[in-house]
Amino acid sequence: MYLTDAPHLRILRLLRDEGPVSRAELGDRLELSRPRLLAEVERLVAAGLIAEAGMAASRGGRRSTLVELHPGLRFAAVDLGATSIDVEVTNGRLEPLAAYREATDIRSGPRAILHRVNDLLAKAKAEGVYERLDAVGIGVPGPVSFRDGVPVSPPIMPGWDRYPVRELLAREHGCPAVVDNDVNIMAIGERHGGVAHSVDDFLFVKIGTGVGCGIHLAGAVFRGVDGCAGDIGHIQVEPGGPACSCGNTGCLEALFSGAALARDALAAARSGESPALAQRLAAARPARSGSGRAARGGSESGAVVTAKDVADGAAEGDIACIRLIRDGGRRVGGVLATLVSFANPSMIVIGGGLAQLGHVLLAEIRSVVYRRSLPLATGNLPVVLSELGSRAGVTGAAVLASDSAFEQAS
Amino acid sequence: MYLTDAPHLRILRLLRDEGPVSRAELGDRLELSRPRLLAEVERLVAAGLIAEAGMAASRGGRRSTLVELHPGLRFAAVDLGATSIDVEVTNGRLEPLAAYREATDIRSGPRAILHRVNDLLAKAKAEGVYERLDAVGIGVPGPVSFRDGVPVSPPIMPGWDRYPVRELLAREHGCPAVVDNDVNIMAIGERHGGVAHSVDDFLFVKIGTGVGCGIHLAGAVFRGVDGCAGDIGHIQVEPGGPACSCGNTGCLEALFSGAALARDALAAARSGESPALAQRLAAARPARSGSGRAARGGSESGAVVTAKDVADGAAEGDIACIRLIRDGGRRVGGVLATLVSFANPSMIVIGGGLAQLGHVLLAEIRSVVYRRSLPLATGNLPVVLSELGSRAGVTGAAVLASDSAFEQAS
Repeated sequence: MYLTDAPHLRILRLLRDEGPVSRAELGDRLELSRPRLLAEVERLVAAGLIAEAGMAASRGGRRSTLVELHPGLRFAAVDLGATSIDVEVTNGRLEPLAAYREATDIRSGPRAILHRVNDLLAKAKAEGVYERLDAVGIGVPGPVSFRDGVPVSPPIMPGWDRYPVRELLAREHGCPAVVDNDVNIMAIGERHGGVAHSVDDFLFVKIGTGVGCGIHLAGAVFRGVDGCAGDIGHIQVEPGGPACSCGNTGCLEALFSGAALARDALAAARSGESPALAQRLAAARPARSGSGRAARGGSESGAVVTAKDVADGAAEGDIACIRLIRDGGRRVGGVLATLVSFANPSMIVIGGGLAQLGHVLLAEIRSVVYRRSLPLATGNLPVVLSELGSRAGVTGAAVLASDSAFEQAS
Repeated sequence: MYLTDAPHLRILRLLRDEGPVSRAELGDRLELSRPRLLAEVERLVAAGLIAEAGMAASRGGRRSTLVELHPGLRFAAVDLGATSIDVEVTNGRLEPLAAYREATDIRSGPRAILHRVNDLLAKAKAEGVYERLDAVGIGVPGPVSFRDGVPVSPPIMPGWDRYPVRELLAREHGCPAVVDNDVNIMAIGERHGGVAHSVDDFLFVKIGTGVGCGIHLAGAVFRGVDGCAGDIGHIQVEPGGPACSCGNTGCLEALFSGAALARDALAAARSGESPALAQRLAAARPARSGSGRAARGGSESGAVVTAKDVADGAAEGDIACIRLIRDGGRRVGGVLATLVSFANPSMIVIGGGLAQLGHVLLAEIRSVVYRRSLPLATGNLPVVLSELGSRAGVTGAAVLASDSAFEQAS
């Protein structure tokens, strides 16, 4: 939060992030004169955004009235992944009042997916979680024109190019809506309630189905000229390496991502190179062969080994599993060393599904980054795991939703 | 320039960048009320920063008075390279009134180098170019703490670490001083008077003795947490490649930079692989053997071939020269493709001594960037040569100097 932001925004964000505060403290904290503060508070009460919340404990003189965000405020937060939908409905303080998660396929297209989103929100409404929404925030797994509220040429989202996501959600729910890239909302979430709390310059690296990077500079998400800043999954790390969905070869994402790890782990299981994975593959076959998940798998037998299997194998000391993780970490680390030299951030956060590979992955990434970047840039550079895990995205979407509702109150 | 900047800054910058303007036009352009504008102008006249400059042409009604920056304003701009000092003294509009260039070695340390800078400025004073300076701006070839005005752990500048450059220059000349990285001032210069005029988000890539990148985001230089953002010369591009001065191997700078090209060109001349370079080497020997330059060269015979020789050889169709340039362009292009995926800029400017390799270099860089980055980020991405060439640095230093003088007027 910056002193240059409008007073109403600073008041609303402080109440969102810290809860009820007395009028007196609010004036002190935000360096607002008493008449200015009272006028702003009165206006925000009239707008239904804040409410009185009893008397504050005495500070010696006259007791001051507490104010808080209106208890009826409701934000919808949506995190669309390549294979999942996460929806939360929160109160003004961004505490989840309802949360839904279901498997999906982003390739079914915007109509079907947004229909599911609206169904989940209708369910929350029917359960009495809200009467009306004050704003909707949504993240999608591809580049977004933040200004226009539409995905732009998203490689893994056929049918979504320039689809009016923001407009349709705003119309459906009669409130402001905001659309951003999935990695950007994860970065925003981690800064709001995770390990990057109050950090102004950091990179959030998501390693999941795809690989991407949320860039937080000078306290705000940096999106680039076309909204595709942070698209690091298609950086070439091995000339002549495996083919990538983007049409090039040797991209980071083709070498290390959820899909790439599943491919390499299956190969290690089948060749017997990894006894731990071979055992899991054998155990998985009868149990999973009839499930929807296995049926969607690409392999002939329908059998799969997962990132979790690799993490468990590594924990048991399986050499091949450890090697798979370290190879991946080395590749991610090489790209991050370049980005550290370029951007000189103050923290790197690793999130997404493969963050469950944990400290073996982290140790390898750190080793490469610390060795390959200049000492000045790494002398005080934490490389850490996401604290919020799979909730980072919805948390950031709720932050964006609340910001857009607050901005409308000007 | 942003509407959120203080009015006096906006007035001074507009007069600097566009010359004399009538009071009436100034008010319109900066969206300032007439009383506010008159008060600011009066204050800046009293402070000796602006002056009246006659009557404007009539706009139909009463004729308005022209104002301009005070004709006595003088800024000193200094660009320290690894092997050269450039000094300019400019008027308020940043037009050079005197310019000096001499060879040096940054490794002679801060006392000797700053002594030379002050000698050159004393010469300008003795020649009547100025009576007193209003600000000094200086760029140095290494990381800088912009806030503290000191170099920080600069790899090629022994003795300069935390040396109080800003403080000493300010005391010596009795005016504000400002210190920045050499690549940052080149980026600022190119934006002020070059090909990046008014472009808000661009990368300025300097390929000279070393390799670095000035990052301009949202209209301002981005310096990173420790001031070393843009230090791209030490990004690894070839594992196991040649040793670099930083202690690692295969850094971009070890493979393609002024020093690396001189090394590779000399090898191509000696092996006879390049007839054009062999011829130049033979011709250079007698002519250069007694010169100071050859005496400083590292090779046993003292013979050198230069980037200019390689450029000329390529222009004559010498295959080895063309290959040297294309190999270098491919390596720079690979790093830039990564940075384009990460930062999604709206322009890339190539400057520094090796920019004289011209369109052969540029074509190779473009080819790699356009092939390796996502279409969304490259659809509208010019990759161009610096317009200001060797004057980019001093131009940017003058811009920084004027900004610091203007800021003091608050």
